[in-house]
Amino acid sequence: MIDQRGQETLTGSAQSEIFQILRDGRPRTRSELATLTGLARSTVAARVDALLRTRLITPVADAASTGGRPSRQFAFDGTQHGVLGVDIGATHAHIAISDLQGTLLTDSVASIAVAEGPEAVLGWVIEEGARLVAALDAAPGFLRAIGVGLPGPVEHTTGLPVDPPIMPGWDRFDVPGMLTRAFGVPTLVDNDVNVMAVGEHDAFFPDVDDLLFVKVSTGIGAGVIASGHMHRGALGIAGDIGHVWVPEADDVPCRCGATGCLEAIAAGPAIAARLRESGLDVTGPQDVAAAVTRGDIEAVRAVRDAGRIIGRVLTTCVSLINPAVIVLGGPIANAGEHLLAGAREVIYARSTPLASGGLQIVRSRGADNAAVAGASAMAIQQVLSVDSIEALIRENA
Amino acid sequence: MIDQRGQETLTGSAQSEIFQILRDGRPRTRSELATLTGLARSTVAARVDALLRTRLITPVADAASTGGRPSRQFAFDGTQHGVLGVDIGATHAHIAISDLQGTLLTDSVASIAVAEGPEAVLGWVIEEGARLVAALDAAPGFLRAIGVGLPGPVEHTTGLPVDPPIMPGWDRFDVPGMLTRAFGVPTLVDNDVNVMAVGEHDAFFPDVDDLLFVKVSTGIGAGVIASGHMHRGALGIAGDIGHVWVPEADDVPCRCGATGCLEAIAAGPAIAARLRESGLDVTGPQDVAAAVTRGDIEAVRAVRDAGRIIGRVLTTCVSLINPAVIVLGGPIANAGEHLLAGAREVIYARSTPLASGGLQIVRSRGADNAAVAGASAMAIQQVLSVDSIEALIRENA
Repeated sequence: MIDQRGQETLTGSAQSEIFQILRDGRPRTRSELATLTGLARSTVAARVDALLRTRLITPVADAASTGGRPSRQFAFDGTQHGVLGVDIGATHAHIAISDLQGTLLTDSVASIAVAEGPEAVLGWVIEEGARLVAALDAAPGFLRAIGVGLPGPVEHTTGLPVDPPIMPGWDRFDVPGMLTRAFGVPTLVDNDVNVMAVGEHDAFFPDVDDLLFVKVSTGIGAGVIASGHMHRGALGIAGDIGHVWVPEADDVPCRCGATGCLEAIAAGPAIAARLRESGLDVTGPQDVAAAVTRGDIEAVRAVRDAGRIIGRVLTTCVSLINPAVIVLGGPIANAGEHLLAGAREVIYARSTPLASGGLQIVRSRGADNAAVAGASAMAIQQVLSVDSIEALIRENA
Repeated sequence: MIDQRGQETLTGSAQSEIFQILRDGRPRTRSELATLTGLARSTVAARVDALLRTRLITPVADAASTGGRPSRQFAFDGTQHGVLGVDIGATHAHIAISDLQGTLLTDSVASIAVAEGPEAVLGWVIEEGARLVAALDAAPGFLRAIGVGLPGPVEHTTGLPVDPPIMPGWDRFDVPGMLTRAFGVPTLVDNDVNVMAVGEHDAFFPDVDDLLFVKVSTGIGAGVIASGHMHRGALGIAGDIGHVWVPEADDVPCRCGATGCLEAIAAGPAIAARLRESGLDVTGPQDVAAAVTRGDIEAVRAVRDAGRIIGRVLTTCVSLINPAVIVLGGPIANAGEHLLAGAREVIYARSTPLASGGLQIVRSRGADNAAVAGASAMAIQQVLSVDSIEALIRENA
């Protein structure tokens, strides 16, 4: 790292090296830490003291004595800080506070339309979030970060929603700024599909390196975990598979202005339109999910057909990135096995035996909590990042 | 790291930390290295001495004196060690020796069919490779690793070819074992598409994090660089897009046993079959490339059509992983702009404006040298890895 005077300074990774070692939860003595890092004893002692002041590590039971004075051990403690996870949906907002181990401490849901605009929706998040934090009666500085999932495209570098189709009034609204001003902690914002991918991966498939999360709702989008990390691509729009051309939709207009898009024929509104031709009173993905849940034969058939069309696009994705797991989420996937069955049928039939032989295709286990859990997981990753640990050490110096 | 006695030992990253700092080529004094790492002065001095013995770093001009004795500076030196890059093609073998900066020192090509079997092909590699090394008159221990690209699937964990369709006699042949025994250095083996992707990325797009390399030859395959790293997927078969189902090939049998595969209609043999119907005497990708190069109208049209079909599969890849660059390689792409033109036409027309707006689609710049350069780059990455630097330090202790 080069500082503003052009001098090389201690890199962040070196400052927080001891914390990164202790993060695995195993207790160690100062002497063990000195051996592990090659740092001078005095440096280790000073850095352990700095970490103790952050409350990110805690002294634990003394090491077994080998004669002489027993040595104190230190370990990671994730219970002394927390994060706020925020899931904004088309017609709801859901917030939760979790500690740094991902344990959910408290949560709250409101029926509020995203179309009411950012001031109204985020106003509720701020008021209710402050109430939840206060009710926990935690130490000052407990809340360390906020993670937010929005139902539309988000510019990764700034966290701003960009041209979100179902979010009137939100275009380039400073979501991270408003929440950071209210709570005084960093705020990360991403689209709900990426957030759900992170949440599903962290909670249910932590040992899987390659996972594809596909949300089928008003639109269709994917979150790509590649080699253990969220893959965003060159412009942050990786996973935008809703507008892939499919032959079945060749002359069907899409809300994006093109024709032939996957979501123009296989997302909630397209399925609902087909069901209206059969006389059902349905408009969006929630209605379709409700019809499937009550066992409507036409709805089941339409959802299974949509699963097949989505499955064909996913066969190309399987060949390209060779995931171990595909998770289908969103209301239509959560309503039963039918979307999954259609997708499985095509993916297993059309993929090479090697690619499909090692592939699990499952429904979202997080279901309705997937987004808020993912937003919390994203915030926890931020809190435990090298830069953030550095900041916390400086703050407590 | 836990050693065999159950004791935690100094991690590899700590041992080679000083080398990783110096790898950027900027010279630094021992004192600067102590400040940067937080290591004790005596530790830094010992580690610098150990690195000097490996010849991976070298003393450079003394730092500007600020009064008193000038301090010696040290920097990475990539000229004292080299790697052997090996490109095995269907009808040729190409080997090259490069230093650790990737500078090609010497190379040699032979016309030898991979179908002659591993003993014959690798026998030539060993004999000719030893001759090239000897002719360099380098210090003992100059050669540090070997990288090999094979024209078929390779099991990543073992480096063994697995069921390679055009390589009779090679199935599970111990390629790394034979070369490692001959030269006494580690050997990495990968399929030629991954190797070419690494070579193209390292040489021409080092600042691009997301790149897709697509080889069109007897088959069609892709190498995926995601977030700066080769993406292999759960079973190491990421990029296997030759067997994606495409509607144009619905009833066309593929050599894999299925019908409808992309390569059954758009790879070299399929294009050649179409051209034979027009009376041309062509069988494989090289013949097709030759016909295109001499300006045969039917060949140009057939290659452009193949480019369009490949382009449609690539639109899904673009949506899923959002690459900054797609590189088309292999003999048919190298023969002119026609395959590229067909692919560009479809990708730019069918992708979302955002995804295609930031996308370059180009021909392989490495062309016929792409594979041997990639195999060398893969070997250099291995030599400069933490574990390998550790081994070199121990070897020179």
